[in-house]
Amino acid sequence: MPKLRHRWALVRVRLAGICNTDLEILRGYHDFRGTPGHEFVGEVSEVAGVSAGVRKRWMGRRVCGDINVSCSAYGHRPLCGFCKRGLKTHCERRTVLGIVAHDGAFAEYLALPLENLHVVPDSVSDEQAVFVEPLAAACEVLEQVDARKFPSAAVLGDGKLAQLIGRVLRTAIPRVVMYGKHEKKLALARQAGIETKKVRGDASDLKRVKENYRLLVEATGLAAGLTLAQQMTEPRGTLVLKSTFHGTAPVETWPIVVKEINLLGSRCGPFEKAIALLRADKVDPRPLIARTFPLADATEAIPFAQRTGLMKVLLKV
Amino acid sequence: MPKLRHRWALVRVRLAGICNTDLEILRGYHDFRGTPGHEFVGEVSEVAGVSAGVRKRWMGRRVCGDINVSCSAYGHRPLCGFCKRGLKTHCERRTVLGIVAHDGAFAEYLALPLENLHVVPDSVSDEQAVFVEPLAAACEVLEQVDARKFPSAAVLGDGKLAQLIGRVLRTAIPRVVMYGKHEKKLALARQAGIETKKVRGDASDLKRVKENYRLLVEATGLAAGLTLAQQMTEPRGTLVLKSTFHGTAPVETWPIVVKEINLLGSRCGPFEKAIALLRADKVDPRPLIARTFPLADATEAIPFAQRTGLMKVLLKV
Repeated sequence: MPKLRHRWALVRVRLAGICNTDLEILRGYHDFRGTPGHEFVGEVSEVAGVSAGVRKRWMGRRVCGDINVSCSAYGHRPLCGFCKRGLKTHCERRTVLGIVAHDGAFAEYLALPLENLHVVPDSVSDEQAVFVEPLAAACEVLEQVDARKFPSAAVLGDGKLAQLIGRVLRTAIPRVVMYGKHEKKLALARQAGIETKKVRGDASDLKRVKENYRLLVEATGLAAGLTLAQQMTEPRGTLVLKSTFHGTAPVETWPIVVKEINLLGSRCGPFEKAIALLRADKVDPRPLIARTFPLADATEAIPFAQRTGLMKVLLKV
Repeated sequence: MPKLRHRWALVRVRLAGICNTDLEILRGYHDFRGTPGHEFVGEVSEVAGVSAGVRKRWMGRRVCGDINVSCSAYGHRPLCGFCKRGLKTHCERRTVLGIVAHDGAFAEYLALPLENLHVVPDSVSDEQAVFVEPLAAACEVLEQVDARKFPSAAVLGDGKLAQLIGRVLRTAIPRVVMYGKHEKKLALARQAGIETKKVRGDASDLKRVKENYRLLVEATGLAAGLTLAQQMTEPRGTLVLKSTFHGTAPVETWPIVVKEINLLGSRCGPFEKAIALLRADKVDPRPLIARTFPLADATEAIPFAQRTGLMKVLLKV
C-alpha cells in the first residue's frame, strides 16, 4: 500500500491503460524502477490530512489524475521557478506517476495529491475515462498552436496516441490526414472522419510521399519518423513532436534550418479539456480498445501490447 | 561572364567572404556544382532590360545582395504559394547564389536581380558590407523571437556566425552568454560586451554545463551541438537552430518532447536591418576578419579558412 502525504488520496485503480511509454520504459527509457502505469481511472478510497468535509467530498469518487506531482504536493517551499510560473508539469522537483520515482497504476492502489485528481462525470464510462490522460496529451497540441490558422493538418503515425491526436485535431481543423502503415488502424481513423494515406514506414516513403503540410504532428513513436516529418512540413510550417523513445535517432537537421520549421515538443495536456471532449461525445476512444486483461495477467498483457498492429490494451483491477 | 535576364544586374565583386556553408558545400552539402560564394560587396557594372533612368540609377552603385532568387526574378507566373505570401526566401523555385543552381561570388562577376540588391551607404566600408549577408542571418533570430521577453540568452558556438548572432542579440538583450571552445574567439566576443564560458566541445560538456536558458541559439556548425543545446534549454524555452552541416547527427529527441522545447529553424534574414546596424555602428564585424586573400589565391584561402580557430577569411577581387 502506498503511503499518503498530507492532502494526498489513495486511489483504488479500476482500469489502467498500457501506453507506448510503458513499453519504452521496459526498454530502458528514463531508467525507471518501480510499478509502471500512468493511464487510469479509479476511485478514492482514502484521503489524508484534510477536514472531515473535504474527505467526505472525495471518498468513493471516480477519478483520473494528472501524472506530474509537483513542488506544492510535496510541501516544498519556496516553489520552484516553473511552479511559480504555473508550469506545474515542468516542476523541477516533480515525480511522474509510473515514470519518474513514483509507483504507478498497474497495481490495486496508487497515491496522488488531491490537486492532481479530476472527477469523472457519471456519463463518462470507465472505458472512456481510462483514455483521459493520453487524450489530454493529444489536446496539448491545440494549446500550443492556433488551430484556426490551419485548414488542414497531418498526423504521422497510426498508433494509439496518433489516433487520439487525429480525433482531437478533427474537432478543430476541417481536414486531417493520417499517414500510417497499418490498414486496420487507418480504417479506425477513417471511421472518426480522418482522411488516411498508407505509407511503408521505411526510407522509401521519403521518395514516395510528396505532400506538404503547414501543420504536422509526428506521433510514430519511432526514430525514423522525424526525417519524413521534416520532409512533409512546409517551409515556415509547424511540426509538433509527440514521440518519446529510448535512444538516439540519426537526424539531418539542416532541413529544419533551411525550411525554418517551427518544431514544438509536446507532452502532457489539460485533463479538463479531455474530459469535456468525452462528456460531449466529440471524441470516442472506445473503438481503440484491443483487449482487456485482468491485472493478474499483466505479464501476459505487456507482450500482447508490444505486438505490432494492436491498439489500446487495458488492465482491469 | 554570367548572362543577364530582364531587370537583372551584373555585379563586379569587390570583396567576398568565406562562410562555413561554403566549406560544407565542398564536403558535399546540397550537392552544388558551380562557383561557390554568397557573401559579397560589389558594384553594379551592367543592368539589363530597364529604362535609361533606372539603369543610370544603379550603374556603379556599391551593393550587397539577397542570395535567394525567387519566382518573380525568373518571370514565373503565377507566383508560387510562398512568393504570394511574401516568403520569397522560401520560394519553391528559388535558386540560391553560390549554393543552389546559381554561380556565386568567388568570381570577378556575379548576376542578381535588381530586386535582390541593397545599396551600401557610403559610411559603411567594404570590410563591413561584406558581412551584411551573415549579419542579416543573425538578425533573423530577432525576427523570430520577441527579444523583450528574454532578460538573458545564450549562444552555443564561437565561430563566425555565432559571433555575429551574439552581437545582434546584445543589441536587444541585456545579458548574452557565449559558450565556445576557443579562448581567442571568446576574447573577441568579450570585447563586444558578450559574457563567455569555455566548454570542451565534447560529450564531457553534458556533465559539466549546468546552466539553463529560456533562449538559446545553436550555432556551433557541428552535429554534436544540438544535444548540449537541448540540455541547456529550459523547459518551454526557445532553441534557435542555425547550424547547417552535411550529414546526420545522432539526436535523442525525447528531451524536446519532455521539456516541450520550441525549436526554431533560422536561415536568411533582413538585409535592411543588418545594414542599419552597421551604419549606426551598433555591430562592428571587422575584428572578426582573420585574413584577406586575392581571388587568384582562392585555392589557398579555402584550406586556410578550414583551419580551426580562424575567423572570417575574405577574397579580394
